[in-house]
Amino acid sequence: MKISGRNFIQGKVVDIKKGATTAHVHIEIAGGVVLTASITNEAVEDLKLEKGKACHALIKASDVMVAVD
Amino acid sequence: MKISGRNFIQGKVVDIKKGATTAHVHIEIAGGVVLTASITNEAVEDLKLEKGKACHALIKASDVMVAVD
Amino acid sequence: MKISGRNFIQGKVVDIKKGATTAHVHIEIAGGVVLTASITNEAVEDLKLEKGKACHALIKASDVMVAVD
Amino acid sequence: MKISGRNFIQGKVVDIKKGATTAHVHIEIAGGVVLTASITNEAVEDLKLEKGKACHALIKASDVMVAVD
Amino acid sequence: MKISGRNFIQGKVVDIKKGATTAHVHIEIAGGVVLTASITNEAVEDLKLEKGKACHALIKASDVMVAVD
Amino acid sequence: MKISGRNFIQGKVVDIKKGATTAHVHIEIAGGVVLTASITNEAVEDLKLEKGKACHALIKASDVMVAVD
Repeated sequence: MKISGRNFIQGKVVDIKKGATTAHVHIEIAGGVVLTASITNEAVEDLKLEKGKACHALIKASDVMVAVD
Repeated sequence: MKISGRNFIQGKVVDIKKGATTAHVHIEIAGGVVLTASITNEAVEDLKLEKGKACHALIKASDVMVAVD
Repeated sequence: MKISGRNFIQGKVVDIKKGATTAHVHIEIAGGVVLTASITNEAVEDLKLEKGKACHALIKASDVMVAVD
Repeated sequence: MKISGRNFIQGKVVDIKKGATTAHVHIEIAGGVVLTASITNEAVEDLKLEKGKACHALIKASDVMVAVD
Repeated sequence: MKISGRNFIQGKVVDIKKGATTAHVHIEIAGGVVLTASITNEAVEDLKLEKGKACHALIKASDVMVAVD
Repeated sequence: MKISGRNFIQGKVVDIKKGATTAHVHIEIAGGVVLTASITNEAVEDLKLEKGKACHALIKASDVMVAVD
């Protein structure tokens, strides 16, 4: 499968915090950078996410901002 | 300044393609990963973005999805 | 591949309008409903999108609003 | 009222799961497709959403991705 | 019509810049604050937007970030 | 720091409701308009948000819709 979302970044799950309906998944990518994804608990279960699991972060280009000093 | 957006990733601009109103900015982050940000031309000018410029990519956690094989 | 985005809707491309950097892709789903996706021209080329091609629309649950009369 | 969001899809609420602050609303649209909307509990109450209620899903075109096999 | 999106802000159109597919609409709200909305050209036409027209800006709560000094 | 997000609106925190993982922060801006931001609990703590604190709301232009009567 190919997806139009331009940012598809290899990583692995390093932490999952489930709330009542929304979970925060922490994904370590290259260089030790850790991303936070806020997704549904349902998705966490459907994808069988757990610490150490290989995954990709997927981000649409229109959701990326740029900041400079 | 501190921002609630949980993903604030250090990088540098490696390419900019301006369209009529919308620009695509490519940002190289750790490990040679290149992100694409779709932002307004106005922001490109306001931030004086140009190839080689140090920057951060900023992404809200609720805009990050997870994919697994 | 499985994706956390909860809305993965089968359809086919019925129209593509490319702009300078951003394209609008129209996708017909069940019941003759036509969705509009605003994606990068780059993605249109990468996915080899063209009229009649089978595809899915992918939408994160946090990007869906509800309206009532 | 008319809204710029290009995807305004007729359906009815088939399930609501309220969390501590965020609710997941399931909306059945044409062809038996069920969408998931992640919205605030406050909105669920304000719109008096309940199972069986007619509604529309509203999605901005820039939040729709495309996937192909 | 009522919409789940929690931010529905009264204003008027003060400027429109149409690109090839994407338009930037500037909306003045209370206190002289000017918002920028990036929407499709198609929506600009469909809503008959023009300078001086009364409108509302609509923003989903999950798309609002917070910044502090 | 300068950010590409075109909507950076001065205000102050008037209410915070923390859920299990997601918090709703209410920000009063000019003219008594109150915005709702849905952000992570983690961000609320990191930014030391509390009632009365000066802040800005930050919204990407591609996340702003327009509505007309």
